[in-house]
Amino acid sequence: MAGRSFTGLVYIGTSVDGFIAREDGDLGWLMSRGEAAGDAGYSDFSAAIDTMLIGRSTYEVVQSFGSWPYGGKHVLVLSRTLDAGADDKISVVRDLDEAADRLGSLGAQRVYIDGGRTIQACLAAGWVDELTISRVPVLLGTGASLFGPLPGDVDLEHVRTDVLGGGMVQTTYRVVR
Amino acid sequence: MAGRSFTGLVYIGTSVDGFIAREDGDLGWLMSRGEAAGDAGYSDFSAAIDTMLIGRSTYEVVQSFGSWPYGGKHVLVLSRTLDAGADDKISVVRDLDEAADRLGSLGAQRVYIDGGRTIQACLAAGWVDELTISRVPVLLGTGASLFGPLPGDVDLEHVRTDVLGGGMVQTTYRVVR
Repeated sequence: MAGRSFTGLVYIGTSVDGFIAREDGDLGWLMSRGEAAGDAGYSDFSAAIDTMLIGRSTYEVVQSFGSWPYGGKHVLVLSRTLDAGADDKISVVRDLDEAADRLGSLGAQRVYIDGGRTIQACLAAGWVDELTISRVPVLLGTGASLFGPLPGDVDLEHVRTDVLGGGMVQTTYRVVR
Repeated sequence: MAGRSFTGLVYIGTSVDGFIAREDGDLGWLMSRGEAAGDAGYSDFSAAIDTMLIGRSTYEVVQSFGSWPYGGKHVLVLSRTLDAGADDKISVVRDLDEAADRLGSLGAQRVYIDGGRTIQACLAAGWVDELTISRVPVLLGTGASLFGPLPGDVDLEHVRTDVLGGGMVQTTYRVVR
């Protein structure tokens, strides 16, 4: 694509050892500890988002909630397997090239990138401008990792750190180009 | 061993994605960014330590410094391969059982556990009481991991978080039994 015109944002909870879900997708360890942190700034963050770019696993977890949390936002689901017409609340995109075209045609401005593999792909592609990582005080030892391999170092700039209820440490970083 | 009589402490620098060294052992990414953080509380931490329990890789890195940083402390090196009589500044221990016996006979009180695999083994064995993790603002994508598999969740309690120079975020956790 020609120059990227949107801002890519990550806002995610992890264990201290960097997992975003257990192997089976369980988030109970996060929810239980996250409760004490309250909203943790999520409402303000979410209100400033116009478009979601999420992975298929994240989409399936969100669907299981029963109520759709992304009303009023465009939702792109990155998946090679999902039926393109399965759900009229979403657009299925097969890869980042297709996502880029779609984000361009939607005029996306602030894109919330969510899901481990999608975040990893977007970090590798240079699509992430800011990360807010909220670490809950537990080591899980195994699970789905927030981070993965990269083509090179990604330099970050510390923006802010807050200690929230329940010992959650929330840090925002800006990606340095 | 009968009840552990020492306090096990971890004090380590990592990238935001949880690496303590590059694949080849390089620490330049940490040293360069850590400089701006100054002492980062290390002198106070180190002064209260009587015994080191480190892995062979860490021992080799420390040896390469030229000057020995552990004067006045007992140093146990956990290694299956190192010659037991190689260096009279250290005691080689083959496994955690032997380390436990040795720590007991030394009357070790405050043990600094260092090196990725050694930290992982000690976390899994329940030997770690407190962790101070200093994250420098970079993603490396690959390297030697601070954390590894565990027999079960390790619950942590947040003790303190400080933002140091250069955007280093230093958090101390207590392990909850």
